[in-house]
Order: sequence, then C-alpha cells, then structure tokens
Amino acid sequence: MAETTTTPGIVATSSRVDGWRIQATRDVRYEIRIRDDVFDVNHTDLLDIGGSPARTRRFVVIDATVHQIYGDRVNKYFRHHNVEHELYVCSANETVKQFETVSGIVAAIDAFGIDRRREPIIAIGGGVLTDMVGLAANLYRRGTPVVRIPTTLIGLVDAGVGVKTGINFNGHKNRLGTYFESTLTLLDRTFLTTLDRRHIANGLAEILKIGLIKDAKLFELLETYGPALLEQKFQGIERSVGRAAEETLQRAIHGMLEELQPNLWETQLERVVDYGHTFSPTIEMRALPALLHGEAVCVDMALTTVLARRRGLVGDADCRRILAVMRSLELPTWDRHLEPSLLVKALDDTVRHRDGQQRLPMPVGIGDAVFVNDVTAAELTAALDELRGTVDG
Amino acid sequence: MAETTTTPGIVATSSRVDGWRIQATRDVRYEIRIRDDVFDVNHTDLLDIGGSPARTRRFVVIDATVHQIYGDRVNKYFRHHNVEHELYVCSANETVKQFETVSGIVAAIDAFGIDRRREPIIAIGGGVLTDMVGLAANLYRRGTPVVRIPTTLIGLVDAGVGVKTGINFNGHKNRLGTYFESTLTLLDRTFLTTLDRRHIANGLAEILKIGLIKDAKLFELLETYGPALLEQKFQGIERSVGRAAEETLQRAIHGMLEELQPNLWETQLERVVDYGHTFSPTIEMRALPALLHGEAVCVDMALTTVLARRRGLVGDADCRRILAVMRSLELPTWDRHLEPSLLVKALDDTVRHRDGQQRLPMPVGIGDAVFVNDVTAAELTAALDELRGTVDG
Repeated sequence: MAETTTTPGIVATSSRVDGWRIQATRDVRYEIRIRDDVFDVNHTDLLDIGGSPARTRRFVVIDATVHQIYGDRVNKYFRHHNVEHELYVCSANETVKQFETVSGIVAAIDAFGIDRRREPIIAIGGGVLTDMVGLAANLYRRGTPVVRIPTTLIGLVDAGVGVKTGINFNGHKNRLGTYFESTLTLLDRTFLTTLDRRHIANGLAEILKIGLIKDAKLFELLETYGPALLEQKFQGIERSVGRAAEETLQRAIHGMLEELQPNLWETQLERVVDYGHTFSPTIEMRALPALLHGEAVCVDMALTTVLARRRGLVGDADCRRILAVMRSLELPTWDRHLEPSLLVKALDDTVRHRDGQQRLPMPVGIGDAVFVNDVTAAELTAALDELRGTVDG
Repeated sequence: MAETTTTPGIVATSSRVDGWRIQATRDVRYEIRIRDDVFDVNHTDLLDIGGSPARTRRFVVIDATVHQIYGDRVNKYFRHHNVEHELYVCSANETVKQFETVSGIVAAIDAFGIDRRREPIIAIGGGVLTDMVGLAANLYRRGTPVVRIPTTLIGLVDAGVGVKTGINFNGHKNRLGTYFESTLTLLDRTFLTTLDRRHIANGLAEILKIGLIKDAKLFELLETYGPALLEQKFQGIERSVGRAAEETLQRAIHGMLEELQPNLWETQLERVVDYGHTFSPTIEMRALPALLHGEAVCVDMALTTVLARRRGLVGDADCRRILAVMRSLELPTWDRHLEPSLLVKALDDTVRHRDGQQRLPMPVGIGDAVFVNDVTAAELTAALDELRGTVDG
C-alpha cells in the first residue's frame, strides 16, 4: 500500500486516500516527595503546586477517619496561608469503592469549580481513597491534576507510588479504572503514628512482597526489624528502628518504581509486582470486608510460596522462614475462603486479565521470581492441604 | 538538590533520598480505515483485529436504531465466519449519555468475558454511542482495545476521528471522560443511506467548522455541493456529487486530524477545532433534547461569525455567505435559549475549561481563525441582537 506523509504523525495510507494512521507520543512525569509533617505551616508544597499565586484555591478530598484526627490541622494550614479551600469528607473503604462515591466527589468538585489545569485536587487518605480520587481527577474534564497525600502504610509504599486508579465493579476488585499519574505525591510518615496496628501490618504485606520477589536485603530488614517497625509504627523511637524504617520504606518504594516505570501502562503483562495478586482479588472480594487488601495479598503469597516449595523453587527452610516472617508481621497465611473451586475460578479470571495466560509470578528462593503458566487444579489442592497443615500445626 | 539516576526514568532527587521523579513515554497509534460495506462477508477487517484465530470472539455494542436496520446483517457476518459473538443493543442519545449506560455496557462485557488485550470490543453507532463505548473500554480492566464503526455523518468526521471519550454529568456536556484511542475506526459511508436528513445536516455542521477555520476550499465544496450532499446522503448517485462527497469527507477528516494529532491530549488549550464549542455545550444541554450536537455547534458558529463581523474580522459579504451556507445545509442559526445571561454563564464555564482564559477561536474571513480573550457581555448582547435580526428578516 502506498503511503504518503503530509503531516508528521499522520500517514495517509494510500495516494488515493483509503485511510490514515496516527501516531503520537505522550510524555508523563510525576514526582514523589518525602515530606514529614506536610501540614506544618512552614511547608509550602501544597501552595506551590499548580497555578499563579493570585488564584490559590484548593479542593481537598479527605478520608472521614483522617478528617476526625487531622481535619482541624488541614483547615488551619490553608487558613494560615489565606487559601480558599473546601474539605470534602469521604468515607473510603472497599465496600464503597464504587462509581457512586466517585460521582459524589466529581459533583463536589463541579460545585466548588476549579480551573482545568492549575488548581490540583488534593487527596488525603489511604489507597482506597487515593484510587478513587485519582479516577475522579482523570474523568473530570478528561483530566485535572491531582496531588496525593497517603495516610496509611499501604498508601505510602504501594497505592501512592504508581499511576493506577480504580473502583470495584460487579463484585470484582478494581475492575474499572485508568492509568493516570498524580502530579505529586507527598510521603509523610508521621500519619502512621495514628494508624492502628492492623493497618501497619496491611502495608507491611506489600513491602514483604517486594522483598520476596526482588530484594533479599529488604526481606532481611523485615525479618530483623519487622515486629519493631509494627510496634513503633515506622517512627524513630529507637534510633536503630528509625534507621530501619527509613531504609525499609526507601527500598520498598524504589523497588516498586523500578518495576513500574518501564511498564507504566502494563503493556508487559508479566509483572513480578503481581506476586500475591493472582488469587487475592477474588479472595478479598469474597471475604469483604473481613480481609484488608494486604492481608488477602499475604494469604495469596503464603499459598504461592507453598506452591513454589512443592516445585523445588523455594527450599524447605526458606519456606518456613517466609511463613514465620508473615506471622511475625501479624499477617494471615490462611483464610476460610481458601478452597480449590474458588482458587480455580480466581485463576480463570486472572488468566483473562493477563490475556490468556497465567503469567503467575512464583518466588525463587528469597529475592527472585519466575513466571509460570501451568498451575493445575490438582496442584492447587495439594498446596492448600499443605498450607492448612502449617496453620493447624 | 543533588540528583542520582539509578534506573533510567527514575531520578532519586537527592543522595540521601528525599524523593523520586518518574518519567515515561507512551507511544499511541491508531488507524482510521475507509471501508465501504464493512459487513460484506468478503471484508475481514473485523476478524483480523486482535488475537489469534483460535479465539475469535467478538463483543459488539450496537445502537438500537442501527440494530433494527442492520442487526441481522451483523449477525450473519459473524455467523458466516463462525465467530462466537454477542450484540449488546444500546439506546444512545444525549439524555442517556451517562455513567448508568456505560455501567450497563461494562456489566455485559464482564458477563461475556473477554481477554484483556486481544478481543476488541466493537462499537457500532453514532458519536454518542462510540463516546460511551470508548469510555467503557478505557475503564474495563484499565483499557481493552476497541474498534469503532460510526454510522452517522458526525461519527464519521468528528467523534470517530479523535481519541476523546465522554459522558454528560451534572447537566454538563461531556463533563466526565478520558482520552483513549480506538485501535481501529472503520469509515463506512453506506450507513448514511439509512440516516435521516436531519442527522446528515448535523454532521455537515462539523464539516463546515473545519472549512470555516482552516480550509476555504472545503467551505466552497459545501457552498456548491452542500444541498446535493444532503439530498443524496453522500452517496455517488450523480458522479459529480459522489466525487464531491469523497473530497468533502477526506478534507474534513484530514483537516481534523491535522489539528488533533499534535495536540492529542489537549496540552495546548487554544484549539481551532473548539470553534463552535464555546457556547454550544451549555446551549445544547439547556435545550436537550431539542438540539442535536451539530445544530448547537452551528448556532454557536453563527453567533461567533457575527461577533467576528462586528470586530471587522469577517467582512459583511462573507458573513452573509456563511449564514446562507448554514441555512442551505438546513442548520439552525438561532435558538430560543440564546440570551445574554446564559451566554455569559456558558463563557464562564468555558473559561474554567480553558484554564482561566476565553481562548475563543474567532473566524478570520473564511478559512482562518484567531483566538481572543476579551469578549464582553455587552458585545455578546449586541451580537445577539444583530443575529436575531438576520433570522427575523
């Protein structure tokens, strides 16, 4: 077929035009900034973003629980800086991670009125909240900037690091969503001081994931300091624990970014960061609201570790070590919904999500992984029996 | 601030890490293919897309009116080729261009089950339908491929050419949406044979827009052949009209692509293709369902032409010529909702959409445009009075 290019990026596919091929390149940039105590009035991150100083208006979506604790402080911050603002308080959890909630957010944005490009929406909360606000920002006028301030550990190391937005749909986890970068994410560890112990453990599961698939040193940090990090909520109460907290967070985030950045739009469907995310979406939705996301991920990782041990990819000692670390982080390695038929159903759905193949990341020792495509129902049943034995025992 | 690059695309913003900057590039490609009689069983465009031949399943969303006329033919096509398929019949018009409709589409996709990357969704219908299916495809698993088959003239020259998806929200036109390319768009003029006259005129409005802002030759084609194109529905009943139809469509689409391709994600908010789209979103939604999209656009263009005449940008003779062509295309140049307070409100909302400035494309003669930022309420009122006079007279 003859081709003529008249405009760069547009190729008419014949001299007697029978079509066009269009090509364009989008350059995406975003920043993740460590900023302890972000609402200290001396910190100007939230003022310097976006437009001209003359038009400093800020629309803030804040999680209801976070609002109870920090709402006054947030208001004070903006009042101090004479910024017209609105706090939209939003109850965020997996059961309301739905379009109705996103719709409420965009309706409030619409009522407040924001300029399309220079008045970023600010999202303050956990991963469920930032996922929903990210989607709202992507949809509103086809994209308005958004700034994330994660307030949970899982938000700091996982949801706040990548570009995925999402809502649950039709009983499926994150079945609807987009890729939309937050211009800026501010990581403020001090929020963890008011986070309950279970939610610290929830975030530790995603950190453990990075350790298991690619960073043995990170695994060892958790093995040594995990219980102290949990107890001291990643603050520097003891100096050695404070140092471990910093290193753990940095390794977890950097490791995550190394996997995400070359594959930001998931053109490559073999993703090691999908470790723990093969069976867990189905388990988590089935167990709702009993399991937190990281807990469901940990159950999946425990199962997959046993699968890997049975294949000789993980040694017996390492398998025991991994399960022991999970328990020391107060994470579950078993759930009552674990039964073969549900796992087969979960795997079927994951296969559709990974375009026809399992592409299941399986650990190799500690700190490495391979992808397999041949897990069978019989193998799952045997692994389940074995895992149940480690729990009962 | 010291910077260290450890991974290409990830910059740690200090040697003692205090953050990361992430950069990535997305390469977007899509094709628009002219294919008359796409459901002729000898045409294999709809079979060759996507995955391996072994898994040819197709989920089709089809407009209810189109289904009445062409449903049997579509079914026959897929049966002939032994393709498992489902037609999801969808009533599509501006009043149901809402998330509820998109939700119905994704629920049906979910029930049918598609592999994430190699089983494209096929959308058959006008711009409202393809806008909604595009959004559904973007949202479903964060992006599944989609193929568009526009069945209206406005779909062929406008909605089917770019990458915008959208739904109305809160009484605002396309307030929610995304940029998401359809892998393939098949342009099949033969659908126009069953399109009613008013919907042909509706598409002519968007063609006229391209003529007015950048292509005097296209304007002249409409001036000469417009009524015949309308009468003969862009088919080649008379040979000269057939040739004019081909040239008109090609110039309109190519002109549109020239404007879209360098600015596919609207980073540049001064867009000549926004001509006719400053006041019309508000007018269209206010008049709903009285005005079709192209009709509202034409009313906006008529008003803006008069504004331009009053500024000396368009001569008296050209102004009369433009309004005469609009009428010869059976398009409205007036609507009862045109009154100063509504136009001021519309302009305010457009200013927010264009990030704080009017950026209003105003015609210069025929075939050129400039952007202005200083239209006043008084000027609008005077132009309205003048335009009303041309209608009453």
